[in-house]
Amino acid sequence: MGGTPVICALDETKTTGHISAMAKLNVREQLLSAGLEALHARGFNATSVQDITAAAGVPKGSFYNHFASKEDFGAAAIQRYAASAHARRRILGDAGLSPLTRLRRYFESLVALPRYPGAPGCMLGNFGAELSNQSPAIRACVGTAFAEWTAALAEVIGQAQRAGELPSGDPPEALAAFVIDAWEGAVLRAKVAQNRTPLDAFLTMVFSRILA
Amino acid sequence: MGGTPVICALDETKTTGHISAMAKLNVREQLLSAGLEALHARGFNATSVQDITAAAGVPKGSFYNHFASKEDFGAAAIQRYAASAHARRRILGDAGLSPLTRLRRYFESLVALPRYPGAPGCMLGNFGAELSNQSPAIRACVGTAFAEWTAALAEVIGQAQRAGELPSGDPPEALAAFVIDAWEGAVLRAKVAQNRTPLDAFLTMVFSRILA
Repeated sequence: MGGTPVICALDETKTTGHISAMAKLNVREQLLSAGLEALHARGFNATSVQDITAAAGVPKGSFYNHFASKEDFGAAAIQRYAASAHARRRILGDAGLSPLTRLRRYFESLVALPRYPGAPGCMLGNFGAELSNQSPAIRACVGTAFAEWTAALAEVIGQAQRAGELPSGDPPEALAAFVIDAWEGAVLRAKVAQNRTPLDAFLTMVFSRILA
Repeated sequence: MGGTPVICALDETKTTGHISAMAKLNVREQLLSAGLEALHARGFNATSVQDITAAAGVPKGSFYNHFASKEDFGAAAIQRYAASAHARRRILGDAGLSPLTRLRRYFESLVALPRYPGAPGCMLGNFGAELSNQSPAIRACVGTAFAEWTAALAEVIGQAQRAGELPSGDPPEALAAFVIDAWEGAVLRAKVAQNRTPLDAFLTMVFSRILA
């Protein structure tokens, strides 16, 4: 655990050949889509393979035609979650807005997403807390997602520094990592409080003290 | 869930009367001490009642003489964890140090605690992420612990503001809550990274941008 580097990777094209590739893709897609939601809502260890197949409306036995294990499924689910989080970052590249405005709009859009009570929080944070010492494969996927997110924010922070919108004292990567950590903590506290106060407080504090 | 206020409370004196109070206290103590460690290391849903009794070295059947359910046990465990976290805050009241120095020493002491790889992270964060939507009772205990922690930090931040060590623009409670959220996020990221870099970065950023 921790000693051996684990790569976040899955062979998305692997098939076993005994059912048609298209039907197989559909079942796999149903499993991932419904199962991701179940894992996000309840957590990994509280969700059984049967919960996942029931949520997807497919026979329990079909699960292992598509995934070698529940851990494999969890790794695929967190990669899919990271891909959707990546898609939500498009505004960071909007050339019609100044870099600092893009950063603010981005976090405003994140703050507007969750509905309390019951919002599941950030799946990266949930899996990171629950599984980092249980699954090296899932930990690697969470780490990769955090690294890509940090790099994406750092790029725009660097642009804001070069545009004179932010002072250039701190390295963009350090600012980005701190802001993401503060965001994860705020999402966690909002989940415990079951209200959005910590998210609004995050916006105020980050854009008056960190990205300011 | 979330609609009904849930109080974080357990009747610590409850006994069933059919075994001696002292023997019962010892078994309860063993269960809490070893079980807390197991829950902290593995998480709530990955730990069974049998794991807890095995860790404590007591018969499985004895568990329900002391706790009505695994959830009850989880609530007692997180309260005990919060009490030990409270004890680690003694330095915040050290009258021989300036308020800002106390704040810095306190967080330096927190940063020095975990050993990677394998450090379990903050149990408040772990349980908050895993259980807020699963157990109103445990969520209430985590919320109470966060609120007490925030109040304790806010008191010293207020002292630092009145002593002129910190500007008095932001309310101490808002600063304290943000710092704790940022801490939780840093601990989470350190757990994913399996190294202390995020914790050191937290110290640098907080004491140059937030408590500065």
